[in-house]
Amino acid sequence: GGRFRASEHQHVRYNPLRDDWVLVSAHRVKRPWQGQLEKPPPEDVPRWDPKNPLCPGATRANGEVNPNYEGTFVFPNDFPALQPDAPEPDDSDHPLFRAAPARGVCKVMCFHPWSDLTLPLMSLPEIRAVIDAWAELATELGASYPWVQIFENKGAMMGCSNPHPHCQVWASSFLPNEACLEDRTQRQHLSQHGIPMLLEYAEQEAGRKERLVVENADWLVVVPYWATWPYQTLLLPRRHVCRLQDLSDSEKDSLASIMQRLLIKYDNLFEVSFPYSMGWHGAPTGPYLQEDCRHWQLHAHYYPPLLRSATVRKFMVGYEMLAQAQRDLTPEQAAERLRSLPEVHYKKRAE
Amino acid sequence: GGRFRASEHQHVRYNPLRDDWVLVSAHRVKRPWQGQLEKPPPEDVPRWDPKNPLCPGATRANGEVNPNYEGTFVFPNDFPALQPDAPEPDDSDHPLFRAAPARGVCKVMCFHPWSDLTLPLMSLPEIRAVIDAWAELATELGASYPWVQIFENKGAMMGCSNPHPHCQVWASSFLPNEACLEDRTQRQHLSQHGIPMLLEYAEQEAGRKERLVVENADWLVVVPYWATWPYQTLLLPRRHVCRLQDLSDSEKDSLASIMQRLLIKYDNLFEVSFPYSMGWHGAPTGPYLQEDCRHWQLHAHYYPPLLRSATVRKFMVGYEMLAQAQRDLTPEQAAERLRSLPEVHYKKRAE
Ligand SMILES: O=P(O)(O)O[C@H]1O[C@H](CO)[C@@H](O)[C@H](O)[C@H]1O
Ligand SMILES: O=P(O)(O)O[C@H]1O[C@H](CO)[C@@H](O)[C@H](O)[C@H]1O
Repeated sequence: GGRFRASEHQHVRYNPLRDDWVLVSAHRVKRPWQGQLEKPPPEDVPRWDPKNPLCPGATRANGEVNPNYEGTFVFPNDFPALQPDAPEPDDSDHPLFRAAPARGVCKVMCFHPWSDLTLPLMSLPEIRAVIDAWAELATELGASYPWVQIFENKGAMMGCSNPHPHCQVWASSFLPNEACLEDRTQRQHLSQHGIPMLLEYAEQEAGRKERLVVENADWLVVVPYWATWPYQTLLLPRRHVCRLQDLSDSEKDSLASIMQRLLIKYDNLFEVSFPYSMGWHGAPTGPYLQEDCRHWQLHAHYYPPLLRSATVRKFMVGYEMLAQAQRDLTPEQAAERLRSLPEVHYKKRAE
Repeated sequence: GGRFRASEHQHVRYNPLRDDWVLVSAHRVKRPWQGQLEKPPPEDVPRWDPKNPLCPGATRANGEVNPNYEGTFVFPNDFPALQPDAPEPDDSDHPLFRAAPARGVCKVMCFHPWSDLTLPLMSLPEIRAVIDAWAELATELGASYPWVQIFENKGAMMGCSNPHPHCQVWASSFLPNEACLEDRTQRQHLSQHGIPMLLEYAEQEAGRKERLVVENADWLVVVPYWATWPYQTLLLPRRHVCRLQDLSDSEKDSLASIMQRLLIKYDNLFEVSFPYSMGWHGAPTGPYLQEDCRHWQLHAHYYPPLLRSATVRKFMVGYEMLAQAQRDLTPEQAAERLRSLPEVHYKKRAE
């Protein structure tokens, strides 16, 4: 009985990009938490540490010495999960035991020479330099590899083993699972509806407004209708753009600006350097550069784990791993919360 | 160049149950770890704590007092993600904004009255009592609900907020994502190959042996060929069994035995109470009890996060969330390691 209210009544929502569902049980956010508390990130990271292999002038695991770089700095991952050459597995002898070849490269990109900075504390020209470096790597590695995954693990909670601001780029000879999935769903949407899914979605969200976090002339950030992580966001261009390397100069500037605004809000939410994993998805490359990829729309996913404070995270465990993702506040509540936060970083407020 | 060796050469493996792939990069296990260290579980959990809402005689959040139970004890989750009644969401006004009703119940099951025990430290009759309680709940809730998810989050690292040995049971009015996926892949396998996928798989693994961890007359545990978590295992019956409630008396006894052997090995691996999320998957219930479910084979998944020690875990983050799961040792290496461990619990060895 009674009238349905998303913030009070459990329901499931469909994720059209992954073709699956999320359970929304917003009433659960009231439950007390007696479990593991996360350690807040260290406040005393030295700006320069000669023993940190990501710093300018430091020696890396392979014995190489980093240049005294002043902007971004890209180098090969010393422990790559993907290498350009590897013998191929034998042909499978049984359909339940199937292996296939995997080749690729793994790079690390430092965002800035200082270890005590993060993207939300960097200036617009510095963030713009990161975007340029992303587009260059996407072009360079995308010339031959079908998929170039740019991603940032930020914070120890997200498996990041080094506080120096950096991201990774793993290019592969295969389309990874998430790429296959989004390729299929976006292809189907274009063929059924005559418009790329995420272009239509951005238009809808721009009008509906309740899940908007920040927007400018070229971009918008929403907590997607189907978000699984508490403060998950989706960064979308307003025009149809297939790949990072297709962005215009001014779109890269406005991207730097919207990223800065989003990430400052994230840090302001719990007044802590906000942990997340983020990454870019765009049309596949390599051999796919010759194919029709109009169903693709460039986008970035932000997956942050914190739920209620700097030390209480959402665990995606038992039910989530074995059955279905479940969230404890509505995407609309999360968006409202983020929207209402100031756009000046809490560390710069008193200055 | 050179001959392919799975332990040295990256490759991808197909997961026929989820219809996706895992990247196996076993050479990566050598990389140094400077990231977050996990806190080992507390060693000093009191056997009985009147302030712990899972203990016999304790008062729960809703004011109810637990009985002085002596075996297993089942009660409703005080903060349920699923409730039996909820108003239904309005019909969707747009294909990208689709919600659907969700109803269900969430229960908690204590395994034992003592807070300082875990399954691997319990006796065979005590574990057998847990299995009986699982089968009863599966029958009772499965009479009306299509899916009854039994799962255990063990350890603070896996979001478990209470050290008292317990699991959860969430029954839902819908088939969750993982259930849909496994229903589709198993259905297809039976129709293409004339034998249930996991029955064929168990037969194969029983013969190949290299991924076997423990086995007995009715059951086997393997590190599946497509495992994503470092020491992930799959517990399988040898005969065709659709649901927990279809197990014979002697199969429940042999299940208690193989669970105990597996979980003792897990604890012995790093001499710590081994964290994991585990859960049971079997044929759907409720309305599906009337349908042909012969493609289903009962199984339990164990997803443990530890990688190298009691304090170094595998993070499924950036690349894994945005592209594809990646593992740092081969399933065969993990199985060998587990196989070689003693079957006496390290805490009971000196006694
Ligand atoms: O219900 P609990 O044990 O408090 O909560 C735990 O398990 C649930 C089901 O997997 C998860 O949704 C929670 O994030 C986790 O902390
Ligand atoms: O390469 P890193 O930063 O040491 O490692 C981190 O990111 C990788 C890619 O997401 C993951 O596979 C690792 O588990 C994680 O710790």
